[in-house]
Amino acid sequence: MDTENIKHPIIQGLLRLIRAEDRSGAYDTELDEDLIAPFIVTKAQKRDLPMFDDPDPDILMRVGQFYAAVAWEVERRTGKPVAPLMNIHHEGWGKALLICGRLVAVNSHVRELHRFGFEDLAVLIEKAGKLADEGVASIEKFPDVAEA
Amino acid sequence: MDTENIKHPIIQGLLRLIRAEDRSGAYDTELDEDLIAPFIVTKAQKRDLPMFDDPDPDILMRVGQFYAAVAWEVERRTGKPVAPLMNIHHEGWGKALLICGRLVAVNSHVRELHRFGFEDLAVLIEKAGKLADEGVASIEKFPDVAEA
Repeated sequence: MDTENIKHPIIQGLLRLIRAEDRSGAYDTELDEDLIAPFIVTKAQKRDLPMFDDPDPDILMRVGQFYAAVAWEVERRTGKPVAPLMNIHHEGWGKALLICGRLVAVNSHVRELHRFGFEDLAVLIEKAGKLADEGVASIEKFPDVAEA
Repeated sequence: MDTENIKHPIIQGLLRLIRAEDRSGAYDTELDEDLIAPFIVTKAQKRDLPMFDDPDPDILMRVGQFYAAVAWEVERRTGKPVAPLMNIHHEGWGKALLICGRLVAVNSHVRELHRFGFEDLAVLIEKAGKLADEGVASIEKFPDVAEA
């Protein structure tokens, strides 16, 4: 397993969010790599996933955890509170925003969520990092709105 | 019926949104006052509405129409595109934002949606007007963010 990328703050944030959902201690003995595994969906696996029907609620939960992890990363870098706000249609498409004060720090459109996932941890970190970059840059550009 | 307030742009906007949901022509013969009637819930009626269980989907649809009507009113006054974005928990509380560019023009918290409604049309217009005022003021305060 990709032990180096597991240590990345974005993955560690994601793991904290995943473990926070554990109400019974069931995850106490689970390894980090097993908990993060459902976020990894290769291109070949995506091709096999049908786009019929609604995406599984577990997928939508993972989408929420992903954007919450990005929000934490933006908070970590800016020191400002950032809240994720998602509006996802049950068919698996919609918007995910990260809000900081009165600023839409990140404005993201999602679709085909039936196939939500990343080729590997490095790609997950890269995509989350790009979104976090966008958030940090817009907060730095409009600091008064981020504090309004 | 309150024929004077029915003519108000906010109520007329709301009626256009309601009629837009009509896919079969069923509303063609309905009077404006009958279509707007479900938005009017008096204090006495609210007391009789239980807070058990989830609010009816029709109520959540009306909440969406209300904020869309406010968005239209802000658009009408500013000439800028405004998009409503709601994130409502199924138990009947959450957030309703109006987004203009990268600006959160209106930031509204809603709760106890089981009892969503207004004492009369004048109160509906007043509440929508206050939200629209907030939206217009924030767009005027941060015009560059509203166009970002």
